[in-house]
Amino acid sequence: MSREFSFDLLKQDDQSQARRGRVHTRQGTIETPVFMPVGTQGTVKAMLPESLKEVQAQIILANTYHLFLRPGHHLVQRLGGLHRFMNWDRPILTDSGGFQVFSLGDLRKISEEGVRFQSHLDGSSHTLTPESSIEVQQALGADIIMAFDECIPYPSSREYVLDSTRRSSRWARRCKQAHRAEDGSALFGIVQGGMHSDLRAASVEDLLEIGFHGYAVGGLSVGEEASLMYDVMDWTLPLLPADKPRYVMGVGTPENLIEGVSRGVDMFDCVMPTRNARNGVLFTTFGKISIKQARYLEDPLPIDPACGCYVCRNYSRAYLRHLYQSGEILASVLNTHHNLHYYLHLMEEVRQAIEAGRFLAFKNDFYRRRQAATPAAAEDAL
Amino acid sequence: MSREFSFDLLKQDDQSQARRGRVHTRQGTIETPVFMPVGTQGTVKAMLPESLKEVQAQIILANTYHLFLRPGHHLVQRLGGLHRFMNWDRPILTDSGGFQVFSLGDLRKISEEGVRFQSHLDGSSHTLTPESSIEVQQALGADIIMAFDECIPYPSSREYVLDSTRRSSRWARRCKQAHRAEDGSALFGIVQGGMHSDLRAASVEDLLEIGFHGYAVGGLSVGEEASLMYDVMDWTLPLLPADKPRYVMGVGTPENLIEGVSRGVDMFDCVMPTRNARNGVLFTTFGKISIKQARYLEDPLPIDPACGCYVCRNYSRAYLRHLYQSGEILASVLNTHHNLHYYLHLMEEVRQAIEAGRFLAFKNDFYRRRQAATPAAAEDAL
Ligand SMILES: [Zn+2]
Ligand SMILES: [Zn+2]
Repeated sequence: MSREFSFDLLKQDDQSQARRGRVHTRQGTIETPVFMPVGTQGTVKAMLPESLKEVQAQIILANTYHLFLRPGHHLVQRLGGLHRFMNWDRPILTDSGGFQVFSLGDLRKISEEGVRFQSHLDGSSHTLTPESSIEVQQALGADIIMAFDECIPYPSSREYVLDSTRRSSRWARRCKQAHRAEDGSALFGIVQGGMHSDLRAASVEDLLEIGFHGYAVGGLSVGEEASLMYDVMDWTLPLLPADKPRYVMGVGTPENLIEGVSRGVDMFDCVMPTRNARNGVLFTTFGKISIKQARYLEDPLPIDPACGCYVCRNYSRAYLRHLYQSGEILASVLNTHHNLHYYLHLMEEVRQAIEAGRFLAFKNDFYRRRQAATPAAAEDAL
Repeated sequence: MSREFSFDLLKQDDQSQARRGRVHTRQGTIETPVFMPVGTQGTVKAMLPESLKEVQAQIILANTYHLFLRPGHHLVQRLGGLHRFMNWDRPILTDSGGFQVFSLGDLRKISEEGVRFQSHLDGSSHTLTPESSIEVQQALGADIIMAFDECIPYPSSREYVLDSTRRSSRWARRCKQAHRAEDGSALFGIVQGGMHSDLRAASVEDLLEIGFHGYAVGGLSVGEEASLMYDVMDWTLPLLPADKPRYVMGVGTPENLIEGVSRGVDMFDCVMPTRNARNGVLFTTFGKISIKQARYLEDPLPIDPACGCYVCRNYSRAYLRHLYQSGEILASVLNTHHNLHYYLHLMEEVRQAIEAGRFLAFKNDFYRRRQAATPAAAEDAL
């Protein structure tokens, strides 16, 4: 508990904005750039904590909205906090609940005070405010706490974006005041401003004035073109202080991660590897495959011949297709294991490349493998 | 492949029919009495092979009917057999498919040749005969193969039981002729005869004349009273040769296992621990509990304070209830792990008790714990 949150910038790439860093939290150290698997309801779906460690997960994300409603943050607190509850002793970042609450549409009402909403589980009424969001996150025992903000829908009018971003700044200040920093947890601010460079800059200015342990870029991966997402990163990231971690929320595909790293992002989270896994969509060095396809019916190869994960070492595509077609739980277990390994191993390779001063070469290689190497080519290479 | 199937009777209890033995298969050795987890579709639901080993599973059962229909035994064979397909290198026993096929009701038609039936998956027509059942099981690569028989419904008329049992005997002879023993696999005959002691005796006589590597008692756990099940065991087991393994199929509760062992049974299988787990019903030394009950909402204790399994060492009832209520995959994973540990650890204790000549004391203790020790008492004892 006594360890202060801090960030070491270990190396700045000289051909891109990519950076190699280390985040120190009260619950342990995180090597960056890092991808954080999402554990919505106090479990990364289909993964044992030991399996998460096997794929080298350093930190996971938990959802405040879901845990607030069920089983409730007070219950989790009385049982010793989320780490103990879910048997995960590495760092946990919690989102603020804002993203889910704002997504409820007709079931929520926004005011300056906060958001009144109805539970998607039983229709019961609740309110989340900047203060209560921080309280919930601290009761859960999060090591990194996110400010309560609005993730602005896309597209929105400039006027709406301006009003919302200003309100999020006011809420960010209230979050900072509500946060009890003495427990050693860190508080991150979230840059909004929609797809407008001047509003992003204004948001950054507001947050820097308040001061946070780290800065997130929110409001991305909301349906915009990838090029626009990268534009927003290009406008925003250079404005953030180099000595604090930078987190782009809810992003994204493997390509998004590589592009984000190139632009100086340190932290990512996304449900993509876990959700896709449960739908039979698997990430490989040569692109995505859908394991349900008939072409894999009798295929003795592993998902990705270039992958060294537990699943690829032990199971054929034919078996994984059989499990998926049969609706077996093990399909989700094995597919999730592979996909998380893919994401986390990719970030491990990224870190090594930055350290070795060959990130751009790695990036080129990453794209070359995905474009040139069809599954057939990858198989021929064996 | 060269190792011959054999059975060593290591110790015969002198106060009961309980016996401690060792089954040698081409795929490894099995300490008996043994419980075999059920892996219907080429996976013990929700369990990694490594987790099965962690709970000390020595052998698993796979279902011929399911694997015959999907993915098909030829496919499994071309991919190197079921062991390789599912990444399980310990022994596998396959049932004959008869149980499932006969359960199809209107979808099946019995003749002397075999059973014609429609797939529950897509309505397609298939036939299983004694010969084809053995062929399928050998293609799958089973180490222990079961004869194709009818599991007689209960209740049935004496006339039906007599006819069916005679037909099963004729089929058993055809199975013996069809079995290619040179691959080192073992073939077990199955005693039928319903709930009639003379028909059980006649069935045993037929099977002994044919000669098998081991003998199963089928047609139990079909809705009869437990006392009648034990009567059938009492009539049948003494007629079986002491130097061959004895397997009671589809049984059962922990009490059924203890009673079966007392009567000289060496092998058991049942979906009970795995299926119950997925429904939130957990086995403990003090009886069954349903984890969904509100009483466990904030309960910090493990499922069973007397259990040393991975789940009980790391998770609270409150967390397991939360996972179950949230419909999380991890609920099935953890509950199944605990229940299989319970069953397999119980059998380990049984084996130790027989070896030490204290099986009856163990049995008394088993019942005392379940009757006296309420959950509250078990908790107070901590
Ligand atoms: Zn893999
Ligand atoms: Zn346990």
